[in-house]
Amino acid sequence: MKHLTRYLTMNIPVRMDFSNITEQVEAVVAKSGVREGLCLVNAMHITASVFINDDESGLHADYKSWLEALAPHDPKRYRHNLTGEDNADAHHKRQIMGREVVVAVTKGKLDFGPWEQIFYGEFDGRRPKRVLVKVIGD
Amino acid sequence: MKHLTRYLTMNIPVRMDFSNITEQVEAVVAKSGVREGLCLVNAMHITASVFINDDESGLHADYKSWLEALAPHDPKRYRHNLTGEDNADAHHKRQIMGREVVVAVTKGKLDFGPWEQIFYGEFDGRRPKRVLVKVIGD
Amino acid sequence: MKHLTRYLTMNIPVRMDFSNITEQVEAVVAKSGVREGLCLVNAMHITASVFINDDESGLHADYKSWLEALAPHDPKRYRHNLTGEDNADAHHKRQIMGREVVVAVTKGKLDFGPWEQIFYGEFDGRRPKRVLVKVIGD
Repeated sequence: MKHLTRYLTMNIPVRMDFSNITEQVEAVVAKSGVREGLCLVNAMHITASVFINDDESGLHADYKSWLEALAPHDPKRYRHNLTGEDNADAHHKRQIMGREVVVAVTKGKLDFGPWEQIFYGEFDGRRPKRVLVKVIGD
Repeated sequence: MKHLTRYLTMNIPVRMDFSNITEQVEAVVAKSGVREGLCLVNAMHITASVFINDDESGLHADYKSWLEALAPHDPKRYRHNLTGEDNADAHHKRQIMGREVVVAVTKGKLDFGPWEQIFYGEFDGRRPKRVLVKVIGD
Repeated sequence: MKHLTRYLTMNIPVRMDFSNITEQVEAVVAKSGVREGLCLVNAMHITASVFINDDESGLHADYKSWLEALAPHDPKRYRHNLTGEDNADAHHKRQIMGREVVVAVTKGKLDFGPWEQIFYGEFDGRRPKRVLVKVIGD
């Protein structure tokens, strides 16, 4: 079994935003030499997500409004913030959008549908965070 | 390492519905010859989900009402629909229900709890879409 | 390829609570002898979750309030409960928090960011339920 593990560093200059990391993941898959297997991509921080959806700026604006309505930033709403943090909302938004994706690798490529793109979702940015990419297979 | 990849085609005649695909996934696992490994099942379209829950029609009706309340269809609510689409709500519902499941394969079978069943969740149907099933292991 | 499958039994004495199972998963990884691979951890029951987030009691209290607001227990709200159940809310809460996590195993350890911990999320407790842990790799 072949395997390769790489760590991407994300540095999102605002609190909440989404960044397309598909090309970086494709590069790890190519480097791994895996033709048939699985590729795990996960946020290593618990106020961030990795998810698959459309690369369309209107949709991303919709997601931000929607997540803000479901889990408003307002620091006073959350007991977690009594610890001195102000990012409890980010821990909630991340649960909606998910921690990770697992993507099939087939014939040496990410086996994607027509519009699938991999995004890093940041909900408490303005500092460096890491994303893990691990490919296993033959 | 053994591997097998298959693509199911779903054709849901309404906008939102759920379809039990457990038997089709079991058939792929059996054909793969994998005794110990992992089975990935994912929607290849970004307005659809694959998830595991109960095969009970009342629960499915509850899910539909709940998802409609969390992300109403109303096309005018969403900036994504300014692109000419009317399915922004489907991109939101899919995030709640998830893109994929990873199921253990043990002794040649899906290693399920007593009520686990795999569903395709459609949120913008009335056209063919694909589901990827990939099994890897020994 | 090496593999090891273990089943944890959870017995949460209240309807909704979260239990840190990181050490138990680490023990399965160590026993598996896998140095490079993937570890799947999933709830085997459809009214429970496995998720990764922070081990902080204020955050867990926030999650409970938030999930109760998104999917209230009130049995009369749900068609699923016409079957004689009173746990339809638990099937909804589980979809928000997710069924499973897949964690990279690197150099024989769970390859975690600084605060990642694995939790069992119970939404209809007061009876034993199982969690599956499967490790595959070399």
